[in-house]
Amino acid sequence: MRLARKDLLGLKEINKEEISLILDTSESLKEILERDIKKVPTLRGKTVINLFYEPSTRTRTSFELAGKRLNADVVNISTSVSSMVKGETIRDTVRNIEAMNPDIIVIRHPVPGAPYFIANLIKSSVINAGDGAHEHPTQALLDLYTIREKKGRLEGLRVAIIGDIAHSRVARSNIYGMLKMGMDVTVAGPATMIPLYIERMGVKVTTDIDRAIEGVDVIMMLRIQLERQIENLFPSLREYSRLFGLNLDRLEMAKEDVIIMHPGPINRGVEIAPEVADGPHSLILDQVTNGVAVRMALLYLLAGG
Amino acid sequence: MRLARKDLLGLKEINKEEISLILDTSESLKEILERDIKKVPTLRGKTVINLFYEPSTRTRTSFELAGKRLNADVVNISTSVSSMVKGETIRDTVRNIEAMNPDIIVIRHPVPGAPYFIANLIKSSVINAGDGAHEHPTQALLDLYTIREKKGRLEGLRVAIIGDIAHSRVARSNIYGMLKMGMDVTVAGPATMIPLYIERMGVKVTTDIDRAIEGVDVIMMLRIQLERQIENLFPSLREYSRLFGLNLDRLEMAKEDVIIMHPGPINRGVEIAPEVADGPHSLILDQVTNGVAVRMALLYLLAGG
Amino acid sequence: MRLARKDLLGLKEINKEEISLILDTSESLKEILERDIKKVPTLRGKTVINLFYEPSTRTRTSFELAGKRLNADVVNISTSVSSMVKGETIRDTVRNIEAMNPDIIVIRHPVPGAPYFIANLIKSSVINAGDGAHEHPTQALLDLYTIREKKGRLEGLRVAIIGDIAHSRVARSNIYGMLKMGMDVTVAGPATMIPLYIERMGVKVTTDIDRAIEGVDVIMMLRIQLERQIENLFPSLREYSRLFGLNLDRLEMAKEDVIIMHPGPINRGVEIAPEVADGPHSLILDQVTNGVAVRMALLYLLAGG
Repeated sequence: MRLARKDLLGLKEINKEEISLILDTSESLKEILERDIKKVPTLRGKTVINLFYEPSTRTRTSFELAGKRLNADVVNISTSVSSMVKGETIRDTVRNIEAMNPDIIVIRHPVPGAPYFIANLIKSSVINAGDGAHEHPTQALLDLYTIREKKGRLEGLRVAIIGDIAHSRVARSNIYGMLKMGMDVTVAGPATMIPLYIERMGVKVTTDIDRAIEGVDVIMMLRIQLERQIENLFPSLREYSRLFGLNLDRLEMAKEDVIIMHPGPINRGVEIAPEVADGPHSLILDQVTNGVAVRMALLYLLAGG
Repeated sequence: MRLARKDLLGLKEINKEEISLILDTSESLKEILERDIKKVPTLRGKTVINLFYEPSTRTRTSFELAGKRLNADVVNISTSVSSMVKGETIRDTVRNIEAMNPDIIVIRHPVPGAPYFIANLIKSSVINAGDGAHEHPTQALLDLYTIREKKGRLEGLRVAIIGDIAHSRVARSNIYGMLKMGMDVTVAGPATMIPLYIERMGVKVTTDIDRAIEGVDVIMMLRIQLERQIENLFPSLREYSRLFGLNLDRLEMAKEDVIIMHPGPINRGVEIAPEVADGPHSLILDQVTNGVAVRMALLYLLAGG
Repeated sequence: MRLARKDLLGLKEINKEEISLILDTSESLKEILERDIKKVPTLRGKTVINLFYEPSTRTRTSFELAGKRLNADVVNISTSVSSMVKGETIRDTVRNIEAMNPDIIVIRHPVPGAPYFIANLIKSSVINAGDGAHEHPTQALLDLYTIREKKGRLEGLRVAIIGDIAHSRVARSNIYGMLKMGMDVTVAGPATMIPLYIERMGVKVTTDIDRAIEGVDVIMMLRIQLERQIENLFPSLREYSRLFGLNLDRLEMAKEDVIIMHPGPINRGVEIAPEVADGPHSLILDQVTNGVAVRMALLYLLAGG
């Protein structure tokens, strides 16, 4: 089977059937990761280029492993917007890469929309690996996969997404995907971190984390960007942690079979307490494992099929 | 077949028959790039090391893809002359790499002649991927390939190379190669960018771009190194563009079937107008595609054959 | 056959039989490096992650080639302790990598003991590629291999290790390994570079290089860390070279069939004279070649077997 689209850019434009196809394909590919010989010849002779304009060890590694385990040739190009010293436009950079006949370009770029712009320029498939604060669709797909794997379904589940909603591409992509799969989504965070009019997307909004997590099946904590956010948006880390961090006390008020997720990397003791991150409800490492399977599925559905 | 030489260092010392062998081999390998499965087992078990002392996404990627599509193991070593903190000489670095039994070392180095020095030290094949302002033979070979593919021949064609001739390894290698293949070469640029006595190489010289492009079959524009050159060699970028840039007005004075080339990355609106770079005469992206084929041919002829 | 341990962390905890197994396996794998097709399918479908917290071209390349020649998928992650900007703990970083199902993680880290800490956290095999001034077991194993290959045995051989013993992980690992293999070890260097109580490890100690090399079968010179050491530990480089450097005059006082080793990169004219490094007694490049074979053996014994 194959996705009836060239690219995977965001979950905004993808439909429920496509998401289900990706999750089902991930399920059959995940089995490979548990084998002694984690390799199938599916994408032999195909080329995947990881074009990363922002540093990202974990996402780049996940795509690299996904490609290699399908036998694709994987080439990494790490650059930065500021170091594009030679003055070439991104349009020219990408058309040059395209001229080398890659099958799939995986791109991470700090500018929202950059992957869309690029996908329109070229015939190769483009996968968005994160574009600014806009979308991070492969993260949301691996999150959906992880929830479905644990809960057996998505439809009807209730989820709370907690943290800096406004600057989170993970939150945006998850909101699109979860609503399409029939989930009930509440977002929670300090008022300074909630975008105006977000309820128009179809989510509930609160600034009270205790209310947000009450009765939900899934709690998804977002990462606080220590480097820059706190000082402008919140009095202090300690205050943030007290009001919006997920600790054992708060967890006790949640459903007994609640699952805890986090896109990583986690700030222990800030948005999530160590005992919660490492506790029995946490699926944080399952998310990482499933990330490889979901990316294998996408490479397969876009290039192989 | 195999090149009767260990290394490819420059086009100065290579002869017409060798160039033709490389171009013919490239032609048969280019077909692989258009297949669905872009991979042949030709260099299975061979090792290619990309040793880059200058950053270069495009040339490194081109060699990496060339190697991988021939099934070679490719290892990238990116370093910089200044960051050789440990104080090891390049001679020791290269003899150490040699001791790991690579078949081919692809080297880019800012010092003219560095690849020659290295080739004399070791038994592995060495390919020069650019040595200072000296030579960039694989670029010239892909240029010759692209011209021959489009025009059906090289012998007797007239070409104008325009820009900073003095600091261009691309110009030097092309001049050697083109003259050997029986082409008629004119170089043009500001007087400050033309080396003294260059006519002794066998080329015509002018500082008038309009005269240079009159009646030629090929116009090869060179990249202006924005970072450093202009301020010492020319009043301003705008002035450079007006006097030496290739725009639509100038293109109208050229032959109807002229082809436009540029080694990239291009400075849009400086040495070449966007409408020209993206126009029907431009072969700039073909050059990139052919670069992979030509590098596959070289890896094959030096290591496989 | 397989090592009866999950990890290779140091030579302190490994026994003589295990060392012999590794050296014997290296011997049978070295033959592959001399073939025209340097590749065997032994580790097909296995994943090796090179996780380097310190820059290291040579060790990283050696492991990368070792993995690729066994057909493993190799992924490089280069980072630095200071650039772990996102604030993730090494424990979380490694558990995340583990979640992607690697078979072996090769780690270099500036903190002594870091690989031990990591090995306890995860199920994947861990190979220590250098942890601060603590151990560098694969270097010592390739040294032992090189000595055995040249001398036909290890038992009963006399070796002098000369230089900055106190800060050398190479010296420490070699002392553990050599003593276990029944060798007689003398360490020599300036008093400021000899750790207190080192004789308790079972070695002889002297500050007189001439006495140290008298009658030994192996002289192992250590690298002086130009960047930082000299100014605190010794009056000047020239003085160091005169008192502790290995030059031709000194070499004449050694046994006729003495072998000279150095872990590289060498400082020519500081700890070793060029004529000695390049002379007939030197095995410095053999060490590099054997390094690939020994690392292939370790990958095989830990992941394949």
